[in-house]
Amino acid sequence: MRLYMGLVHYPVYNKRSERIASAITSFDLHDLSRLARTYGVKRLFAIIPLEDQQNLAERIIKHWTEGYGASYNAFRKEALELISIFRSLEECISMISESEGSKPILIATDASRRIVRGLSYVEARQLVDSGQPVFVLFGTAWGLDEEILERADYLLDPIESGTGYNHLSVRSAAAIIVDRLVGKGTL
Amino acid sequence: MRLYMGLVHYPVYNKRSERIASAITSFDLHDLSRLARTYGVKRLFAIIPLEDQQNLAERIIKHWTEGYGASYNAFRKEALELISIFRSLEECISMISESEGSKPILIATDASRRIVRGLSYVEARQLVDSGQPVFVLFGTAWGLDEEILERADYLLDPIESGTGYNHLSVRSAAAIIVDRLVGKGTL
Repeated sequence: MRLYMGLVHYPVYNKRSERIASAITSFDLHDLSRLARTYGVKRLFAIIPLEDQQNLAERIIKHWTEGYGASYNAFRKEALELISIFRSLEECISMISESEGSKPILIATDASRRIVRGLSYVEARQLVDSGQPVFVLFGTAWGLDEEILERADYLLDPIESGTGYNHLSVRSAAAIIVDRLVGKGTL
Repeated sequence: MRLYMGLVHYPVYNKRSERIASAITSFDLHDLSRLARTYGVKRLFAIIPLEDQQNLAERIIKHWTEGYGASYNAFRKEALELISIFRSLEECISMISESEGSKPILIATDASRRIVRGLSYVEARQLVDSGQPVFVLFGTAWGLDEEILERADYLLDPIESGTGYNHLSVRSAAAIIVDRLVGKGTL
């Protein structure tokens, strides 16, 4: 399995559907890296264009990988070590392409289903199982900008719940999606 | 479906396997209530014995259900309204029993699999589908105390990942578990 995750802070939407760079959330870095480590994801890219936000993310990561946190909680260290910070999606794709020898299949996630026909979870799971590098992108704030949805090879179906309400945190959504793509719970 | 969730702050373990009452985490209340609302869970009980922690949780909830947050984000209001704060597990069980007319089936969750034979996700899903009231308990800190595991009717299997590492946040674990019990992603 050659699965990668991307946590995108730019370009994403704010509440008024404007394109923004979002601030980092410490809980996102912890929860998503622990998720990545648990499921055998190869790397979690935090895509952060703003320099001060990059520095903040690096400080958080270093606290748990080199600082006091590393000896306090070795499990946390193992997780946070999976995070790489990059300025743009293109830089992440280049890095994956270089290390894997081929471009990753790019799957965007979106709760609001802006296109009629998305990639089903069964199909997405088959892509992951095929052994090709797969890069799944998660949006912070109000979700991934249209530009990323268009750039992606596939747009994954939203998480169906049947209640008509779908306002999960990116932490919850990423957990559910990775479990659906890789987990063994319902087999 | 008559599914209830419980977020337990006492009795849980700390890092040294001592029984403690944990502090509340604002992100837990947000993420779990949004999860509950998305999947049609009837109520999320926050079990908090300490009075100052109860007050803090109430302030957070009120900000989003009655205060500025309620008009800022109506979706968040709908989610946070699902939370009830109780001092003990017994009080939650009484309240569910009263409103449902029968005692709920109590399912505890635990990442470290302390008993050989747990409840599988397929079996747990059948219990939920049967229409009986089901109350699933999630532990904060280092997990649910033995006392609760023994009190429960079932202990749900841990989330299998195949990597040997299973250190998810309660936010991620709850999302994965509720999706496995109720979600429609892999059907």
